[in-house]
Amino acid sequence: MTDIERAGEAERFSILRLSRESKDGIEKMVARERPFTIILNDNELVTLLSSPVELKYLAVGFLYSEGLIQSRDDIKKVTVDDQRGVARVETVNPTEIEEGVVFKRIISSGCGRGASFYSAADTVIEKVDSSMELSVDEVFILVAQFQRRSELYAATGAVHSAALCDHKDILIFSEDIGRHNAIDKIFGRCLLDNIPAKNRIIVTSGRITSEIMHKVAKRGIPVLISVSAPTDLAVKTADVLGITLVASVRGKKMDIYTGNERIVTDGTSGQRAVG
Amino acid sequence: MTDIERAGEAERFSILRLSRESKDGIEKMVARERPFTIILNDNELVTLLSSPVELKYLAVGFLYSEGLIQSRDDIKKVTVDDQRGVARVETVNPTEIEEGVVFKRIISSGCGRGASFYSAADTVIEKVDSSMELSVDEVFILVAQFQRRSELYAATGAVHSAALCDHKDILIFSEDIGRHNAIDKIFGRCLLDNIPAKNRIIVTSGRITSEIMHKVAKRGIPVLISVSAPTDLAVKTADVLGITLVASVRGKKMDIYTGNERIVTDGTSGQRAVG
Repeated sequence: MTDIERAGEAERFSILRLSRESKDGIEKMVARERPFTIILNDNELVTLLSSPVELKYLAVGFLYSEGLIQSRDDIKKVTVDDQRGVARVETVNPTEIEEGVVFKRIISSGCGRGASFYSAADTVIEKVDSSMELSVDEVFILVAQFQRRSELYAATGAVHSAALCDHKDILIFSEDIGRHNAIDKIFGRCLLDNIPAKNRIIVTSGRITSEIMHKVAKRGIPVLISVSAPTDLAVKTADVLGITLVASVRGKKMDIYTGNERIVTDGTSGQRAVG
Repeated sequence: MTDIERAGEAERFSILRLSRESKDGIEKMVARERPFTIILNDNELVTLLSSPVELKYLAVGFLYSEGLIQSRDDIKKVTVDDQRGVARVETVNPTEIEEGVVFKRIISSGCGRGASFYSAADTVIEKVDSSMELSVDEVFILVAQFQRRSELYAATGAVHSAALCDHKDILIFSEDIGRHNAIDKIFGRCLLDNIPAKNRIIVTSGRITSEIMHKVAKRGIPVLISVSAPTDLAVKTADVLGITLVASVRGKKMDIYTGNERIVTDGTSGQRAVG
């Protein structure tokens, strides 16, 4: 049994592999997908389909990303039933937080669909102010590390990865069948474990939509690196919010869509922001 | 100007391409992402982020997939304002259709998040009964055609494609920044233009989650072909619903997860279901 099977993230299936010439029964690892329900102050808020790991982080990160909690201090209690796939979150000030939740709903589609609740908290996002610099080499090294860590993707092909990094190392790494979930798990963990996210870097395997951009901007991330491509709204959002968007990092090249002043090409980065 | 630019699906951006040795200003095509609001019987139902084309099909396909309409006969009127990204759909029997919409919400994550409303219509899905057969060669030929048609993906890297096919040709092809949207556009077009979907094949670029599986099962699709991988719930759903799931079709091989009796390996398919 492999680590990802032990962790419950994947399961072995017997399948048939066909080519024009051959027909083989083989075993293949398949990523697990489970419903996960978040109950906020006794109200069933949402059911996510996700990889059944790090559910506590996912619950908290989702609530934060949707503007339903602003900080760790808003949380009174979080309990997770891993077996049933249910998290109960109690907040310090229930009435205030739930206001506005049912007003409007946006479903975004980078790939699947994302659902967000509009709330006052989402309408004000500050421009990210950071003097962070990163060299081209450092970007390549981070992405290489990131791809080595993506074990579940390597085994199943059906998940996305996300990582919180400083300019040379991965600090937190998450995988999920949802690219939003993978990032929410990271920010949920930052919140619960008091790990600073501000002035860090996010690396992701997923295509970048405007929603992902807003998500990282809210956490003060100055550099977003993706192996995939962005949409036009994501590029425009990055530009407005002062985020460096490095995308399509593959092989020996990368494309800098916005904020290229943070990417230095002389091999070593100069001054760096303090985490 | 290219076709995809003219169609408003993509836009040219000036970006910086870096490698360890070089630094070039280049132009790159970026997929457009726009909010699209569906107003059902004067109630703002949802805002999707999507590629701003085929919005009429997307509106109708979304309503069908979510169980809010059952057939073309349920639709009284559809008007789309392409500029503002708004569709107004009036149904024959508004009160009946809106019942249950606000009860429960599920957000699924194949990649982004999908949002579905539970409704009575979704709880009963019949097993797909079809004697369709398809040869290994036919699968490879369909996928090759599919990849040639994926122009927006080829240009931008930020969209998904879906196609409705018979055993030798693509009948309808759609692209969208959301893999759910791409499939909804196809089924929306089938509904509006009276194109039979039953006993056809769906080819998709996206990873397969349980939600995608339910979506195609509702339309009586016996064979789902994906270039990507499925989750365990998708495989189990395909098995229960009698759908042939062909995934990870790449290069010269394909993996048959369920329903391998429909894939014949002698080069030519025998009897075929009538569309």
